Amino acid sequence: MTANSTRTDATPLQTPRDVRLACRRGDLTGQTSGLAAGFAQANLVILPESDAVEFSEFCRRNPKPCPLLDVTAPGEFIPRRLASDADLRMDLPRYRVWKDGELIDEPTDICSLWRDDLVAFLIGCSFTFESALQNAGLPVRHVELGCNVPMFRTSVECEPAGKFHGPLVVSMRPFTPSDAIKAVQITSQFPAVHGAPIHLGLPEQLGIRDLNSPDFGDAVPVCADELPVFWACGVTPQTVLMSARPSFAITHAPGCMFVTDVPDVELLVSRRE
Amino acid sequence: MTANSTRTDATPLQTPRDVRLACRRGDLTGQTSGLAAGFAQANLVILPESDAVEFSEFCRRNPKPCPLLDVTAPGEFIPRRLASDADLRMDLPRYRVWKDGELIDEPTDICSLWRDDLVAFLIGCSFTFESALQNAGLPVRHVELGCNVPMFRTSVECEPAGKFHGPLVVSMRPFTPSDAIKAVQITSQFPAVHGAPIHLGLPEQLGIRDLNSPDFGDAVPVCADELPVFWACGVTPQTVLMSARPSFAITHAPGCMFVTDVPDVELLVSRRE
Repeated sequence: MTANSTRTDATPLQTPRDVRLACRRGDLTGQTSGLAAGFAQANLVILPESDAVEFSEFCRRNPKPCPLLDVTAPGEFIPRRLASDADLRMDLPRYRVWKDGELIDEPTDICSLWRDDLVAFLIGCSFTFESALQNAGLPVRHVELGCNVPMFRTSVECEPAGKFHGPLVVSMRPFTPSDAIKAVQITSQFPAVHGAPIHLGLPEQLGIRDLNSPDFGDAVPVCADELPVFWACGVTPQTVLMSARPSFAITHAPGCMFVTDVPDVELLVSRRE
Repeated sequence: MTANSTRTDATPLQTPRDVRLACRRGDLTGQTSGLAAGFAQANLVILPESDAVEFSEFCRRNPKPCPLLDVTAPGEFIPRRLASDADLRMDLPRYRVWKDGELIDEPTDICSLWRDDLVAFLIGCSFTFESALQNAGLPVRHVELGCNVPMFRTSVECEPAGKFHGPLVVSMRPFTPSDAIKAVQITSQFPAVHGAPIHLGLPEQLGIRDLNSPDFGDAVPVCADELPVFWACGVTPQTVLMSARPSFAITHAPGCMFVTDVPDVELLVSRRE
């Protein structure tokens, strides 16, 4: 389960706190996929307060790619609702620092960059629904192949908010028709982590010409008896961020998520009503 | 809404009781589609007690094509749980009478055929979920075209029970991919009326070679930007009945359903848990 993570010790990282402390110590600097199984992980976007209101509105207008789990107050680096003892400046394996839309650094902590006007956005991650799919017996191709999920820029524009605009990015998982129906049913139960697919079967309608050439991640085979199924993807806010070119931003590095104390099952729609 | 019904008066048939009494008087002898909108309609299968246990088990093993709404006690012609003042011998527009698997008559009442050993099976009907799809803004092709839904015998065998066996019959409704996803979500909420689709997108996997040649009902166009979506169909028990050739059986005539007093919304899964 930890094959993709870069770690220098052999301690099992079974609890969310284990993972966060390994990050804080500098022992974990790679991917978090499969770690602390059963707990939700989150995408991270940090912006100055001056950009935060617009980005918040962008997320509200685009809940499928940008389902907000929590937003911190300016200067606050403890995401209390998701993990009361966490520190967003140190508890992710690796970060990306952006200046005017350009990637300038990939540090393993951001303590020296923290400012009193920074706002952290924690956005739901598909790992939660992938666990639910697997628990229901549905094979998730890229997990079985041990590679990253294939992701595609689409011809569908997100609803813009101020400077934040850009195309919807989708992730693709192939399923047989009957499994695709089950996948719709299962992921509909998890609106906080992208929810139901936005499309299936006819990729050309999304402006996707070649399933073998994803814009991000790795290509996976789609068999003749399968349909490609597309979900709104948490990479969307990152590409939107790059297009909007805010003066300063910090995100997680790809695959290096924030591990929360929230059990996956707590994100079921039935628990949230 | 009543264009398909054969009626000799102009009384609006807005309540379930209106419809049933029009049948009882002999004023309504045609289809019930669109009548008493908002109330569930049911497929009817009547069998001697000697065949009823096996047929009941067949329905239990095949809940997608045969979702049982109610089963009466032997000799009982009032389906009290679905309509306390109804009489199953007179309150459907038209019946079919079967002897050894052969259709021998299509009467408008079955009073003279009723026996103390007859058991009535009332099986959920897709009219309920079609209303829900339309209420959600999804276009239902055959309703828009004013024709019958296309139905296909598949290569999928039902789970047999004693003499009752045969292929699953499916109905097909075309939708764009995003509407197909919504249709899965909506119909998943109605397990008592066939529930979620069983297949979509790849008809050849069901042994369906030509969507333009349905085995029952009427062909409808599937546009290039649409996927065919397949639901288990209430015609399945009728074809199974014909294959099993019980000595005696009565069913509703196609489209001439039993109109219950149960509001469609009462069949939502959330109301039944």
